[in-house]
Amino acid sequence: MKNILTPIPPADARERLMIAALDQFTRRGYAATSVRELCEAAGVTKPVLYYYFKSKEGLYLQLMEESYTRFEAILSDLKSYSGSARERITNFTTGLFFSYVKQLPLLKLCYSIYYGTPQGAPYFNLEQYYDRVLDELERLVSEGIKLGEVKDGNVNDIVWTVMGCLNITIEEQLCHTNPRIDGDSMKRMLDLVLNGICTN
Amino acid sequence: MKNILTPIPPADARERLMIAALDQFTRRGYAATSVRELCEAAGVTKPVLYYYFKSKEGLYLQLMEESYTRFEAILSDLKSYSGSARERITNFTTGLFFSYVKQLPLLKLCYSIYYGTPQGAPYFNLEQYYDRVLDELERLVSEGIKLGEVKDGNVNDIVWTVMGCLNITIEEQLCHTNPRIDGDSMKRMLDLVLNGICTN
Repeated sequence: MKNILTPIPPADARERLMIAALDQFTRRGYAATSVRELCEAAGVTKPVLYYYFKSKEGLYLQLMEESYTRFEAILSDLKSYSGSARERITNFTTGLFFSYVKQLPLLKLCYSIYYGTPQGAPYFNLEQYYDRVLDELERLVSEGIKLGEVKDGNVNDIVWTVMGCLNITIEEQLCHTNPRIDGDSMKRMLDLVLNGICTN
Repeated sequence: MKNILTPIPPADARERLMIAALDQFTRRGYAATSVRELCEAAGVTKPVLYYYFKSKEGLYLQLMEESYTRFEAILSDLKSYSGSARERITNFTTGLFFSYVKQLPLLKLCYSIYYGTPQGAPYFNLEQYYDRVLDELERLVSEGIKLGEVKDGNVNDIVWTVMGCLNITIEEQLCHTNPRIDGDSMKRMLDLVLNGICTN
C-alpha cells in the first residue's frame, strides 16, 4: 500500500526539476516563477517537487549549491596545470573561461540575482565564485614572483588586471548573441598583460 | 481662474521627481514602484508627475535620456585631453572612472535593468554607454599606433584590455561598500597594460 499512497518519484524527475528551475528562473525571474509552473515545465506533479526540495526556495538553493560544488571541482582541475607561471596563469584563466561558457544560463541567473532588483530569492553567496578565482590568481602570481618568472610588483594589480580580461570577456558572452571578443581574444589580451610582467 | 484649475507645478518639482525616480527605481525596482510612491517620495501630487512626464514610463525614459546626454557631454570633455597617446588613454579612462563614481546610483539602475529580470521598463539602449567608450578608446589607440607611440598590433585587443581594467574597477565600486580596488589601482593596472604596448 505504501507505494500507492506515497509513490517514489521517477528517477529523473529531480534532474528535470533542476533543469526547469534554471531555465525558468533565468528567463522569467525567480519571483515570477511559481511552483506550478516549475512542475509543469518539468512534467512532474507538485508532490514530486516537495519530495525532493520541500519548496521553491529549496529548489533554488539546491541549484545554487550544486552549481557551486561543480565550480569548485573545476577549480581543482584547473589548479593542477603545470608549466611556467605564465602558462599556468593563462591556462587557468582560459580554462575557467571555457567552463563558464558552457554554463551561460547559470551565469545569467547569477548576474540577474546579483545585479537585479531583489526578487525574494533566499540568500546565496554569489561572490564566492569571484573571490575564489581572485584567490587562485593571487596564488599563481605570488608563486611566479617567488620563482622569478613574474617581475616583482604589486600582486593585486596584476591579479585584478588578469581578472579584468576574464571578466569583460565573460560579460561579452553574457550580453551579446554575437560576442565581439571570445576565448581567443582573451588569450591575446592576457598575452598583452603578461608580456609586460613576465620575465619569460 | 486658469491658475486655480491647472496650477503651474512648483519649479523644482520636476527635479525632485527625477531624484525620487532614480532612488526608487534603483532601490526597489522599476516594476515595484508606483506613480503614487514616486509622487509621495518627491512630495508632489500625481497631476504634477503627469504634467511633466505623462506617465511612469515617461519619467523613466526622461531620466535615462538626460543621463545619457550628460554622459555624452562628459565624453566630449574627456576627448579634449592633449598629451601622448599613453597620457590620453590613461586620462580618458580615469576621467571616465571618476565620473562614473559620482553616478553610482544611476549605474546601479542601469545594471539592474540590463542584467535583471525584465521589469517592463520601456526600452532604452543602455549598450550605447559601453559602445561609445569602446569607440573612443579605439580612436585613441589607433592614433597612438599611427604616431608610433603605441606598438603596432591588434587594436581591438588593446582596447578591450583597457576596457577590462575600467569595467572591473567600476563593477567593484558597484558591488562593494568597501571596494578592494579604486581609481588609483586602476591607474596602476593601466600602467601594467600600457608598459607593454607603448613605446614611451
